[in-house]
Amino acid sequence: MGDIIRTARAILGVTDLERSRRFYEDVLGFVLTERDDDHLYFRGYEEHVHHSLVLKKTEVPYVEAIGFKVRSEADLDALTERFQREGRKIRWLEKGTQRAVGRALRVEDPSGVVVEYFAEMEKAERLLQRYELYRGARMQRIDHFNCLVPDVQKAYDYYIGSLGFACSEYTVTKDDRLWAAWLHRKPNVHDIAFMNGEGPRLHHIGFWVTDPMSIIHACDVLASVGYAGSIERGPGRHGLSNAFFLYLRDPDGHRIELYTGDYLTSDPDFEPVRWDVDDPRRQTFWGHAAPDSWFNEASRFKVLDGDGLVPLHPPTLEKLKPTFVL
Amino acid sequence: MGDIIRTARAILGVTDLERSRRFYEDVLGFVLTERDDDHLYFRGYEEHVHHSLVLKKTEVPYVEAIGFKVRSEADLDALTERFQREGRKIRWLEKGTQRAVGRALRVEDPSGVVVEYFAEMEKAERLLQRYELYRGARMQRIDHFNCLVPDVQKAYDYYIGSLGFACSEYTVTKDDRLWAAWLHRKPNVHDIAFMNGEGPRLHHIGFWVTDPMSIIHACDVLASVGYAGSIERGPGRHGLSNAFFLYLRDPDGHRIELYTGDYLTSDPDFEPVRWDVDDPRRQTFWGHAAPDSWFNEASRFKVLDGDGLVPLHPPTLEKLKPTFVL
Amino acid sequence: MGDIIRTARAILGVTDLERSRRFYEDVLGFVLTERDDDHLYFRGYEEHVHHSLVLKKTEVPYVEAIGFKVRSEADLDALTERFQREGRKIRWLEKGTQRAVGRALRVEDPSGVVVEYFAEMEKAERLLQRYELYRGARMQRIDHFNCLVPDVQKAYDYYIGSLGFACSEYTVTKDDRLWAAWLHRKPNVHDIAFMNGEGPRLHHIGFWVTDPMSIIHACDVLASVGYAGSIERGPGRHGLSNAFFLYLRDPDGHRIELYTGDYLTSDPDFEPVRWDVDDPRRQTFWGHAAPDSWFNEASRFKVLDGDGLVPLHPPTLEKLKPTFVL
Amino acid sequence: MGDIIRTARAILGVTDLERSRRFYEDVLGFVLTERDDDHLYFRGYEEHVHHSLVLKKTEVPYVEAIGFKVRSEADLDALTERFQREGRKIRWLEKGTQRAVGRALRVEDPSGVVVEYFAEMEKAERLLQRYELYRGARMQRIDHFNCLVPDVQKAYDYYIGSLGFACSEYTVTKDDRLWAAWLHRKPNVHDIAFMNGEGPRLHHIGFWVTDPMSIIHACDVLASVGYAGSIERGPGRHGLSNAFFLYLRDPDGHRIELYTGDYLTSDPDFEPVRWDVDDPRRQTFWGHAAPDSWFNEASRFKVLDGDGLVPLHPPTLEKLKPTFVL
Repeated sequence: MGDIIRTARAILGVTDLERSRRFYEDVLGFVLTERDDDHLYFRGYEEHVHHSLVLKKTEVPYVEAIGFKVRSEADLDALTERFQREGRKIRWLEKGTQRAVGRALRVEDPSGVVVEYFAEMEKAERLLQRYELYRGARMQRIDHFNCLVPDVQKAYDYYIGSLGFACSEYTVTKDDRLWAAWLHRKPNVHDIAFMNGEGPRLHHIGFWVTDPMSIIHACDVLASVGYAGSIERGPGRHGLSNAFFLYLRDPDGHRIELYTGDYLTSDPDFEPVRWDVDDPRRQTFWGHAAPDSWFNEASRFKVLDGDGLVPLHPPTLEKLKPTFVL
Repeated sequence: MGDIIRTARAILGVTDLERSRRFYEDVLGFVLTERDDDHLYFRGYEEHVHHSLVLKKTEVPYVEAIGFKVRSEADLDALTERFQREGRKIRWLEKGTQRAVGRALRVEDPSGVVVEYFAEMEKAERLLQRYELYRGARMQRIDHFNCLVPDVQKAYDYYIGSLGFACSEYTVTKDDRLWAAWLHRKPNVHDIAFMNGEGPRLHHIGFWVTDPMSIIHACDVLASVGYAGSIERGPGRHGLSNAFFLYLRDPDGHRIELYTGDYLTSDPDFEPVRWDVDDPRRQTFWGHAAPDSWFNEASRFKVLDGDGLVPLHPPTLEKLKPTFVL
Repeated sequence: MGDIIRTARAILGVTDLERSRRFYEDVLGFVLTERDDDHLYFRGYEEHVHHSLVLKKTEVPYVEAIGFKVRSEADLDALTERFQREGRKIRWLEKGTQRAVGRALRVEDPSGVVVEYFAEMEKAERLLQRYELYRGARMQRIDHFNCLVPDVQKAYDYYIGSLGFACSEYTVTKDDRLWAAWLHRKPNVHDIAFMNGEGPRLHHIGFWVTDPMSIIHACDVLASVGYAGSIERGPGRHGLSNAFFLYLRDPDGHRIELYTGDYLTSDPDFEPVRWDVDDPRRQTFWGHAAPDSWFNEASRFKVLDGDGLVPLHPPTLEKLKPTFVL
Repeated sequence: MGDIIRTARAILGVTDLERSRRFYEDVLGFVLTERDDDHLYFRGYEEHVHHSLVLKKTEVPYVEAIGFKVRSEADLDALTERFQREGRKIRWLEKGTQRAVGRALRVEDPSGVVVEYFAEMEKAERLLQRYELYRGARMQRIDHFNCLVPDVQKAYDYYIGSLGFACSEYTVTKDDRLWAAWLHRKPNVHDIAFMNGEGPRLHHIGFWVTDPMSIIHACDVLASVGYAGSIERGPGRHGLSNAFFLYLRDPDGHRIELYTGDYLTSDPDFEPVRWDVDDPRRQTFWGHAAPDSWFNEASRFKVLDGDGLVPLHPPTLEKLKPTFVL
């Protein structure tokens, strides 16, 4: 029990709401469902729920939580029981505390990542066939999270063993230690990926777009309005996942990925794709090398209770700078 | 129990294997995994298994079975128990009887559709990143079946109530009777759809392609080599499902759909989209009207045991010729 | 002398300016350079001049003129001399008479088509790289005119022999008579085409778009806002010209074509492509058959001076309904 | 007189014909019209002539000539007269000397670039609508040459003043000296560009493709077959020309550009677009910075008569490494 459905939303602290609104709404074409003095609530054209991205006015940028939708309230109870049994720090936000969301369970996962689970979200009009509104990247839906963690093997074991995720692809070092892993609940490549690095940090949030031309058009629009500098890496094709991608840095430095073209991973006997460090095919399928910032910079998590940031730990494995990671 | 994973394969009888091979392999770019004197086994570039389409040399064209993959052998046993309890006619094909497939359970469903269930299929190299081989429609994977049945409500009740499918979209008549329904196990719009009509017949098999330009290129290739006449309907956009589509008739008249661009239906609280007969938005989103053949012609099923075809029954509801059906 | 550069603009009478503005600007994404009480002036994103389409408030829809740009004022004088020598009815509109255009020479061509020539047009900001403004069909520039005329051979002889056009493609009847011809000054397939039919009438104006996906997106937008009924034919691929196309009817019934993907015709030794009536390759490369309206309906021309419409004449050749014409 | 039509062909020396054939034919999908022991003759799908690229077996890589098509034999005579009057070194290759080409006039232009002019080339089947053959980049036609020359102003003056080219775009230094220029005869952005640099050298040959997705697919195919390392720069969007581009290095280091999406430059009053050094918009519209190799490496020309290479001269203007050049 504790049936996790999918990647559902992220809550990011940003320092200037209006500046962020321009970036996400005007330039990239995210749909602004609602706003108040302290929050912006965005969704994609395909989403039938209130939002998948919350931007919150804060003094410094951080990640408040990454959230998964579970099947039902009973699944929240089952998760609570598990987390308590495991001795994890949890926190409840009762229904009404957060806009448009039912009661939410927050927990620090074994890597220190702050994760939120909820079953219920208010509905919103799905704009899938309101093509006259399509702008920018034509963002369809949230797809995945990618986190830097000190110990990928530990994160992998927990998400596979305790939370019921399945692995689609993974990377190992020469001495056969797990360097990165792509894990899913919904049947595409991932709902969450873990990469070896100083952490816990959120490396990026992936948003699904319809096709490569939406990404090309997003680049054209970004450049037209003076945001070409927001493009950090790409466009290109990933070897891992096969996705066509673009990485952007939002005005606070949070990294988002426009992502399309991975594959169906529904089959229980699908064999995870293994990538070795010395296999040239591990590399980015094609596209320019990722810049240093892509390897070194990521968003910190805010602690579950209180005001500080979750402390960082150095990675277990030697720091590499492969060009193949996602 | 009886966990059905997804639409997995179809077995079609065709009268001229070489003629069919040209159409599927040379023109449309399906991958021919294997052939023998009596069979062709095709897969898409994304598929990691031996095949998703079997063409079998026969005297007359028919459908031998439409097949779903289940989670495990135990799920086959659970289904067997259910079907026996329900008094259905079943047939076992032991492992080794069919090329590349484990033991298979066949059954006549309540509409008379011959359905096959299996858990195991031999693996094949996934060609997803062998772009140098991509041709024609660049077919990625099998997506869904669409069947004409005399009583859609009965089919709906059984697939939802007994087999655990979920409904993504449906159409009702003016007097609120179910005219068509789109049902899924994997979380996109459908693994199987039922439409009101003389049946049971297989209206079409849907194959997933990467994007609309793959369909446009397929049209260009079809026309270049003299197969423009195989295009029966489209390209166009469906209102239902939002998919960009093209309908083709293969050399024996079996109908296939090239299909891309529907949406994620993972959420248990996703509310099925209802389409009323008098709602103009039910219509095909844009594109030319479907020709009469699209409404009247479909493939018959072969009986579970023996040589005849499954007898047809007139539809329960008045025959309509809507332009909105998929 | 009389160096004609290219298809430059059309002036159409429409009965409801605001209704037309919605269609061209809001839905199709034409750029509205300027408007006054009686006119709308549109251009494409690529155009560096004030407009390529003028809509004029009139009681009934008609075509006031189709216009070509010539190299210089001296070329206008040379054309005048030619037309006077040929005894044609001409009319001068001095600079200042028409918004944004220099002095303009109007003439009834041998088919009765009202043609305008001018050398000078006011500049406007080219919006080619203002991608944030791109909407609808992302119209780039005017490309060509297509006219129904009673005697294609006569029109052909005049445009080739007297005006210096070159022929890229043409269609002949079984008894080797010219049924249609595609003629150009700028080096793509055409600036003007003539088809056998009751005329003179303007069959359509062709506008260049960047690629097929712009046309698919235009269809999606048209359908989203309730204009799916404006789609008369396509999308499809022409055999003649190789262009990917869509035909639309504007609110007054004027027909426009979204057009992309023809080819370079710069070489003086390029041999015009001949299409015979009985050659199956003459047919539309792929796509649904054109509806009757496409063959029967077209826009009338207003007489050069005064208020009536240019009288119609029956076609010289037997009326056919081929599916191959553009 | 001396009417130059367009960029027509290049003759490149390569050291391993079979290695080059794999790159151009198998990977990029150029059409191999003909081959003999010492030559490969390639054309694009749209071209109606024998070839636009000749690869010649040589000991070291070099450029034998870049070629323009002129209107007629008389234009060759007019050019000869001009070149003799100007005292240039010329060389005639009589008809029959070179495969598929009529008599050809070769000349060293004022920058030392070896240029060839010819009026006649053997025809070949145009494969524009043989979509079943389309592969790789789906190359349509040759589009332009780009040369590094020591004195751009001198080259500009000669091509504009003596050869009748027009300028579409140009770049100037802070002290208003001409740094680069894009010049055309056919009405798109260029048939030839000159950039300030050690020269004369051929920086790249541009080939026209149909749309950005052809370039994305070319990248996918290149990576699939192990040629990802051939990608030197891009894909991206040029500010200058607005083209979507990809730069490749062939097995001998010759640089080719896949290029699509510039604009019509037919109008005699089109005002060349000026780009200043300090204008941020001069930069590549979006895309990664060009690598050093892109600035430093280019192909040498073979002398008009004999075996050596045309000597190099340092650039007149200070060497810059802008990111905005094409």
